[in-house]
Amino acid sequence: MSDTPSQLEALRERIDALDSDILRLISERASCAKQVADIKTQQDPATVFYRPEREAQVLRRIMALNDGPLDSEEMARLFREIMSACLALEQPVKVAYLGPEGTFTQQAALKHFGHSAVSLPMAAIDEVFREVEAGAVHYGVVPVENSTEGVVNHTLDSFMDSSMRICGEAVLRIHHHLLVSSNTRKDKVSRIYSHPQSFAQCRKWLDAHYPHAERVAVASNAEAAKLVKTEWHSAAIAGDMAAKLYDLERIAEKIEDSPDNSTRFLIIGNHDVPMSGEDKTSVVVAMRNQPGALHELLEPFHRHAIDLTRLETRPSRSGVWNYVFFIDFKGHRDEPRVAAVLEEVRLRAADLKVLGSYPMGVL
Amino acid sequence: MSDTPSQLEALRERIDALDSDILRLISERASCAKQVADIKTQQDPATVFYRPEREAQVLRRIMALNDGPLDSEEMARLFREIMSACLALEQPVKVAYLGPEGTFTQQAALKHFGHSAVSLPMAAIDEVFREVEAGAVHYGVVPVENSTEGVVNHTLDSFMDSSMRICGEAVLRIHHHLLVSSNTRKDKVSRIYSHPQSFAQCRKWLDAHYPHAERVAVASNAEAAKLVKTEWHSAAIAGDMAAKLYDLERIAEKIEDSPDNSTRFLIIGNHDVPMSGEDKTSVVVAMRNQPGALHELLEPFHRHAIDLTRLETRPSRSGVWNYVFFIDFKGHRDEPRVAAVLEEVRLRAADLKVLGSYPMGVL
Repeated sequence: MSDTPSQLEALRERIDALDSDILRLISERASCAKQVADIKTQQDPATVFYRPEREAQVLRRIMALNDGPLDSEEMARLFREIMSACLALEQPVKVAYLGPEGTFTQQAALKHFGHSAVSLPMAAIDEVFREVEAGAVHYGVVPVENSTEGVVNHTLDSFMDSSMRICGEAVLRIHHHLLVSSNTRKDKVSRIYSHPQSFAQCRKWLDAHYPHAERVAVASNAEAAKLVKTEWHSAAIAGDMAAKLYDLERIAEKIEDSPDNSTRFLIIGNHDVPMSGEDKTSVVVAMRNQPGALHELLEPFHRHAIDLTRLETRPSRSGVWNYVFFIDFKGHRDEPRVAAVLEEVRLRAADLKVLGSYPMGVL
Repeated sequence: MSDTPSQLEALRERIDALDSDILRLISERASCAKQVADIKTQQDPATVFYRPEREAQVLRRIMALNDGPLDSEEMARLFREIMSACLALEQPVKVAYLGPEGTFTQQAALKHFGHSAVSLPMAAIDEVFREVEAGAVHYGVVPVENSTEGVVNHTLDSFMDSSMRICGEAVLRIHHHLLVSSNTRKDKVSRIYSHPQSFAQCRKWLDAHYPHAERVAVASNAEAAKLVKTEWHSAAIAGDMAAKLYDLERIAEKIEDSPDNSTRFLIIGNHDVPMSGEDKTSVVVAMRNQPGALHELLEPFHRHAIDLTRLETRPSRSGVWNYVFFIDFKGHRDEPRVAAVLEEVRLRAADLKVLGSYPMGVL
């Protein structure tokens, strides 16, 4: 082992050399991005340089090319930041999100646009819509699948009154696990610690699996995780971070009652997004309330083998129709197959509005 | 302009090629970091791979080498994330910080350790200290210069009872400006909007400069900034983000009464950090209350031309001495000049404890 210091020294020199190369290439990338921006500005001084479909393509390409040792998601995250920095050089993307700061929606905004974007919290969802409509910001970020059901509806309702388009989606993975220290047996858990909110989100699962365990509310899930480290008969409800931090074992994963809790956000903007190759389309359809209306509405999707990813029913606020349906499906409105289905649906529905075609969430 | 599309196409192809190279180099960097980790583990299975002085050196080198177009701070931020990802591959750095999530302390922790670190919020400063002492985490992040004066003292007091060392500092730039829309005259401001907390932080400045302006509290500084866009006689107190987002002019910058408000955080750990080349040292000194005690204490620093960057006086809790002084100065305890001063101070003081020598905040 006498040559260990020189081995380490050689590796550090190699890392320094790699860093110099990475620095040079990122700088050249930034210069290229600047040239793209200059050419576009000549064509149209009001142009927006951020292109959701191009960014999705770059990230997907990176993830496909990557063969380790970093995992593809981590690598894509680094490239998101590199792109964000290159873009901000010429014109930082301006983003309004549903605040306050420190919420999942802010996390989603930063994850989607990178940390070089300029982002500001808004007090309400309609404010986010208004800022985008007024042109004060390029994009808005709003939750669409959230633990507070009212919030989702608020976002959907805002689309009914707005001409804004969906330009993208961001997904955060937020899951609760049942965690124990390594010497705890699954069948010996007599006490469970967690934050009251997490208890509420996992209530059904707990009632089914641990009906007799005492539930002790603590100030945070981090504290819950810390407590079980030294208690062999206790478990904690907490997330990935706490499990990693305290080296706890997961005796059950994703125990939240709504598996998609607080995890999906929409990027709203005022332009259409071209095809990226893997896209989703969201539409809102108004139907008269008659027997078989929903079946009739969905039949063309089925016939053209188009995957529905989500369907929400909302009472109409206009009074003319009884219901509106929010439908998400795979595909882009510019694909002939999708255009054909939309045409058929338009004939059957009282009204159809395409909220947007956009790249499926990459990260 | 007929060749514009092909120009754009060529630039995009060039960017794709650069991305492939960046991907390859980052992957090679990650492999090297993995080899470093393997060698170190052979030497000592319990080793911690994160080395604050090495990381500071890498970032400083990058900032010195960088000559645009990205600014050096942005480039350093990208490299922080690359290092964070490489490190997490082998052993994610575990960090406890003063919570809750969404606070400036979390921001500081993520800025310092990058987004690949595993970080968890703690409910109190002593909990952060305890988690580090117990070895549950590698590092803790606590505020040391904060708007809530009690918090600062709490951190200082925690050091008196702890054997923890300071391993680094993180600085966040959080400033308030007085913002107006471009057609507003500085002497016509009759109303100022802001969040109540920001009003409190800028009270003295406002009393001195705008004693007669009506102060209107709103829900957020973002809202304040939005309001003044359409009111020519109004101003808003808000930060850089709001100014950029709404294209507002700054008629006064950094108007907060304590200019270093909420801006400095300490990284605590259980090991000494070697010299990085640009370091700071923090000590706590207990003195008997006698005339000229402070002057006597500081004289050696002056004589050896060592820059003091901060001095705090706290009443001693042990009862034996009347006061303890927390002193920060430039230099590392391993430098002969610094070692000589510390030796002199040790002779004059009732007690001297070196809290740590650590790299000066890079980002």
